[in-house]
Amino acid sequence: MTRFDPASLRYDANGLIPCIAQQEGTGEVLMMAWMNADAVVKTLETERVTYWSRSRQAFWVKGETSGHVQTLVDLRIDCDRDCLLAIVRQEGAACHTNRRVCFYTSVVDGEEVELMAPMK
Amino acid sequence: MTRFDPASLRYDANGLIPCIAQQEGTGEVLMMAWMNADAVVKTLETERVTYWSRSRQAFWVKGETSGHVQTLVDLRIDCDRDCLLAIVRQEGAACHTNRRVCFYTSVVDGEEVELMAPMK
Repeated sequence: MTRFDPASLRYDANGLIPCIAQQEGTGEVLMMAWMNADAVVKTLETERVTYWSRSRQAFWVKGETSGHVQTLVDLRIDCDRDCLLAIVRQEGAACHTNRRVCFYTSVVDGEEVELMAPMK
Repeated sequence: MTRFDPASLRYDANGLIPCIAQQEGTGEVLMMAWMNADAVVKTLETERVTYWSRSRQAFWVKGETSGHVQTLVDLRIDCDRDCLLAIVRQEGAACHTNRRVCFYTSVVDGEEVELMAPMK
């Protein structure tokens, strides 16, 4: 076995790596956001999925303000080491629009179709 | 309904948008790769998932050489319009290592653990 070294991941020019969040059990793809090396470390240490907010240039502990926490179940690395997959337990809505997932728009015969409404 | 315009997606400085491929039915997250606007159009027109290869700087029709084709079932757009989710039917291995998925390494207690072997 190899000891995991966050520095061994391949980050982009801004020091970021994309992380896909997938719900344990159901397999729903909830969202994709970005992490830097420190966010990867925090996520593993705290088991609270922590991204790097590109707009705020700050750590973004998912659900810290909304309560829609992502608890880490398993963190996976892809073959090229330039993308992460976080298996999580998502509390409530993953999307800031209060929908369960961010991917709620489908392209059907050239038209955009909304697949789900915001949660109550 | 809104007519889908590929130019309305938010591409990065290199004109690319990440696309997550997920297997229909099982929900397996197979891989993540990049598309430019033309690759999005080709994917929708041909129903063969077509990425943009950053290393080759060329279209990458998934499975064209390996036979491990991805047939598009549904293309979804996220809330920020800066990430795509392709629901696909994956023939064989999605990963160039001949594993079903690219995310075959898990971080467990600080060690990297391989979750699956290459397909026969």
